[in-house]
Amino acid sequence: MALINENYLKLHGSYLFAEIAKRVAKFKGENPDANVIRLGIGDVTRPLPDAIIQAMHKAVDEMADEKTFRGYGPEQGYDFLIEKIIKNDYAARGIHLGMDEVFVSDGAKSDCGNIQEIFGIDNIVAVTDPVYPVYVDSNAMAGRAGEIGADGKWSRIAYMPCTSENNFIPQLPQTRPDLIYLCFPNNPTGMTLSKDDLKKWVDYARANKSIILFDSAYEAYIQEKDVPHSIYEIEGAREVAIEFRSFSKTAGFTGTRCAYTIVPKEVEAYTEKGEAIPLNKLWNRRQTTKFNGVPYIIQRGAEAVYTEEGQKQIKELVQYYMSNAKIIKEGLESVGLKVFGGVNAPYIWLKTPNDMDSWDFFDKLLNEANIVGTPGSGFGPSGKGYFRLTAFGNRESTEEAVERFRKKLKL
Amino acid sequence: MALINENYLKLHGSYLFAEIAKRVAKFKGENPDANVIRLGIGDVTRPLPDAIIQAMHKAVDEMADEKTFRGYGPEQGYDFLIEKIIKNDYAARGIHLGMDEVFVSDGAKSDCGNIQEIFGIDNIVAVTDPVYPVYVDSNAMAGRAGEIGADGKWSRIAYMPCTSENNFIPQLPQTRPDLIYLCFPNNPTGMTLSKDDLKKWVDYARANKSIILFDSAYEAYIQEKDVPHSIYEIEGAREVAIEFRSFSKTAGFTGTRCAYTIVPKEVEAYTEKGEAIPLNKLWNRRQTTKFNGVPYIIQRGAEAVYTEEGQKQIKELVQYYMSNAKIIKEGLESVGLKVFGGVNAPYIWLKTPNDMDSWDFFDKLLNEANIVGTPGSGFGPSGKGYFRLTAFGNRESTEEAVERFRKKLKL
Repeated sequence: MALINENYLKLHGSYLFAEIAKRVAKFKGENPDANVIRLGIGDVTRPLPDAIIQAMHKAVDEMADEKTFRGYGPEQGYDFLIEKIIKNDYAARGIHLGMDEVFVSDGAKSDCGNIQEIFGIDNIVAVTDPVYPVYVDSNAMAGRAGEIGADGKWSRIAYMPCTSENNFIPQLPQTRPDLIYLCFPNNPTGMTLSKDDLKKWVDYARANKSIILFDSAYEAYIQEKDVPHSIYEIEGAREVAIEFRSFSKTAGFTGTRCAYTIVPKEVEAYTEKGEAIPLNKLWNRRQTTKFNGVPYIIQRGAEAVYTEEGQKQIKELVQYYMSNAKIIKEGLESVGLKVFGGVNAPYIWLKTPNDMDSWDFFDKLLNEANIVGTPGSGFGPSGKGYFRLTAFGNRESTEEAVERFRKKLKL
Repeated sequence: MALINENYLKLHGSYLFAEIAKRVAKFKGENPDANVIRLGIGDVTRPLPDAIIQAMHKAVDEMADEKTFRGYGPEQGYDFLIEKIIKNDYAARGIHLGMDEVFVSDGAKSDCGNIQEIFGIDNIVAVTDPVYPVYVDSNAMAGRAGEIGADGKWSRIAYMPCTSENNFIPQLPQTRPDLIYLCFPNNPTGMTLSKDDLKKWVDYARANKSIILFDSAYEAYIQEKDVPHSIYEIEGAREVAIEFRSFSKTAGFTGTRCAYTIVPKEVEAYTEKGEAIPLNKLWNRRQTTKFNGVPYIIQRGAEAVYTEEGQKQIKELVQYYMSNAKIIKEGLESVGLKVFGGVNAPYIWLKTPNDMDSWDFFDKLLNEANIVGTPGSGFGPSGKGYFRLTAFGNRESTEEAVERFRKKLKL
């Protein structure tokens, strides 16, 4: 008799976005003429920059000719792309990586979800609260999370609350964690860690033989100087950190799919008997066994991000969204709302007025201003009383949304 | 202290293709002028058909325009592609599938590797021997394979030998299996099951509450009538089978990456307490949590496979390779070699002369005829004394290879 993985039954449904869709559908049914503006989901809306488009056309043509056709590529990605990543995203910041420390993939979601496979089941996982759900769910599926409580917290996950009280900087949990997921600039709060803040985590991991799983999917949005783009800017991080990067938000690749993960040769974890094992070797084995690489055409598109034109165009793209972020942030502040993020990230995390429940604020915003956002409580218990807006809309609707906050929302 | 998944340490290295590369490099070093023909690896060489090229160019252009740009798509794949798959690959054979029973992915390797995640650790896995290594390795990584022996066999995997003695038809193993991997047309042997053969497995799975994981990546190569293209041609298979399909070999997508997996609503596995759980729900949860869909551009390319032009062009592609297969098969038979496969699959599985060791034959073929193939023993103990050639080369080198078998190989 075939048995299922019963850990799957412990998971709650993907309640958040389904519930949002349901409430929006109901509202639109009752208000068919309402012009609803969606600032809820974290998906880009601007077209791909021209340098990328041209590179992909060229690659498509190569696939049409026997002489330039490409079959299976290296599972880890083509050298032409890895070289550009190392040179532009790392060497330019004084970080030196080997060619076999970069693993190109189809998405940071895949890598963040799959990375836990190379670790033992008994590790204690720490996550920030609020949090990107993939870190938690992928560990729960593997049996590393224990049981889920009525408050939505798993018994074997260590949660690190990030709220306005601690300026959204996670503190060490009471249980000593083995695997620590950090995402900065943060989704959903849009807040960052300084180099000093991040150094404390690296030092902690080195002292305790923990591993930091560092998601820097939003690094391209960093505007301020002291905010680290890569965890490897911190001394010693090569011994304890794996870093996830993506072209999704950097270059508009959410529907084009390319990302990469850095696993330095020095990062080690341990057998039960205490033998140190390089994680690079394990991740390479995982990827070569269960993955067959990113399409050649897409890798050529990603490579074009690093041309002179490409760099100029993706910077314009990021600035477009960051101007939206500024418009939202300043607009909301002008009506007296308390707002976080939006400076080094495309996310605005607002405190609901009078500690209103996140879902009540969702309904109020939808009904009074016809704007869809995301209730903070959907990202974890410490998101209660918060609300996320994203800067990924177009300029016109972003400005219109702010206008409605000013004129229609009864605060 | 972070612990690793120690199951990874039990795996042997990807010895086979590394060892081939090493021996070829050594030979070429010593024989710099030799014109080596590679019929070893199972990778396509013909360019992508024009219908697919044109569809991808169009999709690239759509990504350049705000009005047609695509961000995140459904993790399960776009409806436009799923509809075509259902209509052309299944309904045309009398098989009816729901839209939510098809999961588009980046490759059959990913799906074959990931599918085991939704099953419990205590299931007994059965595989044919010889076998595509991903089925075994992915289960070993999850801790389902036990320990590996000196003969390369895992203690908790049930092996089903497929040799000329049983006409390459797997027999039920002595241990009752819960998860049964079947790949037909088979890689590496190129052999098939008839509908009656396959029905025995479906009946067995229904009687024993086992699950069949059916890899039909090579179905497009089937030429004979009685060979099933899909396991769902067999009555009752919807209750017990998951099917993997790929555009890799069908349409030349090995470097373009698109595949799909069918999980019918009726397929169920069980909790320890005996409760039946639909696997469709579990696989959907796995994919939505750890995967973010196939690039829009690539899905449009796959869709074009189903246009009138596309169908015509991929049939030509398959016929090109199958003509190669016929040339190899007949050529080898003409020099007295015993040859299997090559009729409904692009693989030729030959018995080495005088039961020569697979690796000895590899060296002989390389030295005498300058041809690279794959030693059968690399696919499992029952591959000993066999050797794989593939039909994926171009016509000229395939004909030249056969000529060398005739004239240079000392049999």
